[in-house]
Amino acid sequence: MLQQLYRPDLGLLTDLYELTMSHAYRENGMEQDEAIFYLYFRKLPAGWNYAIAAGTDLVAEYLENWRFSAEDVAYLGSLKTAEGHPLFTESFLNYLQRLRFTGRVDVLPEGELVFPNQPILRIQAPLIEAQIIESALLNLVNFSTLIATKAARIVQAAGDGSVLEFGLRRAQGIDGSITASRSAYIGGCSGTSNVLAGRLLGIPVKGTHAHSWVMSFDTEPEAFERYAKAMPENALFLVDTYDSIQGIKHAIAVGKKLRQKGYRMLGIRLDSGDLAKLSKTARKMLDEAGFPEAVIVASNQLDEDLIARLRKEKAPIAVWGVGTQLVTGQPAAAIGGVYKMAAIRKKGEDWQARIKLSENPEKISHPGQLQIRRFYENDIPIGDLLYDQLHGPSQTQAFGQKWDEGRDLLQPLLINGKRVQPPKKLSDIRAFSMRERQRFLQKWNGKTYPAKEEKGFAERKNKLIQRLSVQQNHAGKNGVQTKTNESAIMTN
Amino acid sequence: MLQQLYRPDLGLLTDLYELTMSHAYRENGMEQDEAIFYLYFRKLPAGWNYAIAAGTDLVAEYLENWRFSAEDVAYLGSLKTAEGHPLFTESFLNYLQRLRFTGRVDVLPEGELVFPNQPILRIQAPLIEAQIIESALLNLVNFSTLIATKAARIVQAAGDGSVLEFGLRRAQGIDGSITASRSAYIGGCSGTSNVLAGRLLGIPVKGTHAHSWVMSFDTEPEAFERYAKAMPENALFLVDTYDSIQGIKHAIAVGKKLRQKGYRMLGIRLDSGDLAKLSKTARKMLDEAGFPEAVIVASNQLDEDLIARLRKEKAPIAVWGVGTQLVTGQPAAAIGGVYKMAAIRKKGEDWQARIKLSENPEKISHPGQLQIRRFYENDIPIGDLLYDQLHGPSQTQAFGQKWDEGRDLLQPLLINGKRVQPPKKLSDIRAFSMRERQRFLQKWNGKTYPAKEEKGFAERKNKLIQRLSVQQNHAGKNGVQTKTNESAIMTN
Repeated sequence: MLQQLYRPDLGLLTDLYELTMSHAYRENGMEQDEAIFYLYFRKLPAGWNYAIAAGTDLVAEYLENWRFSAEDVAYLGSLKTAEGHPLFTESFLNYLQRLRFTGRVDVLPEGELVFPNQPILRIQAPLIEAQIIESALLNLVNFSTLIATKAARIVQAAGDGSVLEFGLRRAQGIDGSITASRSAYIGGCSGTSNVLAGRLLGIPVKGTHAHSWVMSFDTEPEAFERYAKAMPENALFLVDTYDSIQGIKHAIAVGKKLRQKGYRMLGIRLDSGDLAKLSKTARKMLDEAGFPEAVIVASNQLDEDLIARLRKEKAPIAVWGVGTQLVTGQPAAAIGGVYKMAAIRKKGEDWQARIKLSENPEKISHPGQLQIRRFYENDIPIGDLLYDQLHGPSQTQAFGQKWDEGRDLLQPLLINGKRVQPPKKLSDIRAFSMRERQRFLQKWNGKTYPAKEEKGFAERKNKLIQRLSVQQNHAGKNGVQTKTNESAIMTN
Repeated sequence: MLQQLYRPDLGLLTDLYELTMSHAYRENGMEQDEAIFYLYFRKLPAGWNYAIAAGTDLVAEYLENWRFSAEDVAYLGSLKTAEGHPLFTESFLNYLQRLRFTGRVDVLPEGELVFPNQPILRIQAPLIEAQIIESALLNLVNFSTLIATKAARIVQAAGDGSVLEFGLRRAQGIDGSITASRSAYIGGCSGTSNVLAGRLLGIPVKGTHAHSWVMSFDTEPEAFERYAKAMPENALFLVDTYDSIQGIKHAIAVGKKLRQKGYRMLGIRLDSGDLAKLSKTARKMLDEAGFPEAVIVASNQLDEDLIARLRKEKAPIAVWGVGTQLVTGQPAAAIGGVYKMAAIRKKGEDWQARIKLSENPEKISHPGQLQIRRFYENDIPIGDLLYDQLHGPSQTQAFGQKWDEGRDLLQPLLINGKRVQPPKKLSDIRAFSMRERQRFLQKWNGKTYPAKEEKGFAERKNKLIQRLSVQQNHAGKNGVQTKTNESAIMTN
């Protein structure tokens, strides 16, 4: 999708500090150091008890095509320090222009359930490559995961009804709309109004007419008749331009004429007012007029809470058109995904685990080569353990099962910078995600899923935190580098 | 920017119903009807008392390059009705492939202050063109206006401090980040971390290093020294990887070494903890160590409220790095911009005003060829009147001034589909916007600005609403089209 959509090379889609750091890594002879980073979020918006991992296929596409064009490098060459000298050396600029992604990426399958503190992506790559790609990977995964999850929640609330994504006009930018359409489809939406997303991604597109159609004619009956004449097989009438009840009557009148000509009215759309009351009245009017098969579509600032309430009130709405709240992920608008270094390997040495401390325990990162093991009972997930593959598990059992009965979730996506999984069809990702979500909800709807740390991993992590705190205090007192005896580095 | 960024033609960046309506307009012989639409928002997020209009230059670029490629048309040709027949006729598809935007667009200057119910854009064009472009125009203007306004609020809160936009990693998609950088700069930010936005738009880029730099070394003092060695003219240290106070000490130690070598430490960045307390301690430590010119940068989930609170607590923070809240416009995430038909002109006839009714008075649209007249006192805006250019004003005075002393805000951007204003430099848009905002805030900070309707316009609008309500009831009772005597159409 990115290659179809974007014209420039996207290497510069990064924060400047990734490049200044990379420049400095290289100046310090660390060009061949390797690092493990992982991408995860620390918590979910209030009331959300799962997320749907998404955007990883975009990451594969991004990394396979990751490069800096001559224009990019010329631009970087024009940047100056505060003193007016070039910010980057010629040598670094030449290096950048040759740079390609050569690392390994392990990911959750797109559409999989994921929980706080679990890696959606794990990168193992030369330090500089892993560093520069940080910003783009966060951008791609954060937004897609937010919208896929929001869509899943809305689709869940809609039950047997179907959900259409109508968000183009309120999305955050052009790509904001297209990536939202993609993610919403993964999360279970049935289609989109966005024609470009339909063309680029193969998502079913839906739509009939707006208020402006009705306003283009002197009266609503004329407007409906003219629409039906022009598009007799796509006749679904928006009835609230002036008055919804009158609009339903006008739709029924035109529906009868359509039927005489051998066509069928598909339904009506309600876009304002009391949707519970209006949909019940509309259903009754349509049924009594002989249109039991005509569907009622509803739109107007819908979200999962409003849909759940309307369904509780038995509103006979078959199709939900959801826009703003879906494509912007409100009220969250962003999943706070982060990308943290978990280990580093100097040339010729062993891996050293790394951790980011914080006064806020929630913000302490996780060290090692992380993997998630998920345990199932009759295909229903019953619990996860986060562990370090450099050490393996110390637990032999978990959630009443043997360790080997669980499944590792992170799977290789790129090795040596090349895809080892072909891109999946979006409709297959969607089907996989909906199946996993339905199984999960059988047991965990509204409950907290046990996504925990493996015992040995948790112990090593706590020891590392303690040692590192001691070391930092010592370094602080002396104002110098501390090493050797008090090293806080957990080697493999 | 769009032409540099996006590869495909963007005609398909529309909701499907725009195309089904256009197909039906054409089938009904309305190809040569003209329409006036305008784009506005009905209200602002709670507590916001102005907005900054933005995105209009993107609209000009979009419309000048608006077309449907052969691939687009082939895709549309593949779409089917519910009965499995082609959704569009060959004739319509051929028509689309030849279609270009030929209309006129009047806009507020980008960066201008705008208030609820005021047109940011007014389109006068063949009905079909004006219809199809709706979705894209809303997308472009809604998001840019949201972020420019959010940025203006944050910059306002920061007072003498400067604000950097750090949002790439949490933005809604790739373009979400770039358009956010553009809009944030218009709203008054001083720079961005986003290097691609810097290259494409000429926005100053900023950045030094992240936690991962520090974690790449055994200790923080080593990390700072190595960074300073590699980039001695870009030395601003992030001090909170392990412990902020220790980090400040380590930064000062390295700052002294830099000074011995003839360089200067630019400052430090705080990214966690109690920013008021830490910044005061940091300031004291830096001053006592002989670094009064070293700046303190703060980041960590900042927004205008938090910045205002920190400034009230006298936190000596000179630079504010703002990410998520800025680039996603939280807590709003979308300005509810709409695009409504205000008049229609059948071939060879006069303009007929159009209005969208609603049970919710706020959702009733405005009829006519709208214009905003703003009145000033010593260059400070004192009030606005919305009026209909097809009728002209009935008021000769407003806000204690003669009508002619006010200025019309909407100015032509495209005529016959071609730009009549050259693109402005982004830095000029920013300077204009900051100047207008500062003048406005002298008088209206925290107050409601009088953005009202001109008297004659309001009277005609109310009459139209009454007549249209009567007509709709009548049409409803008879179930047929109503015309002539009871016509609710306000002709010019």
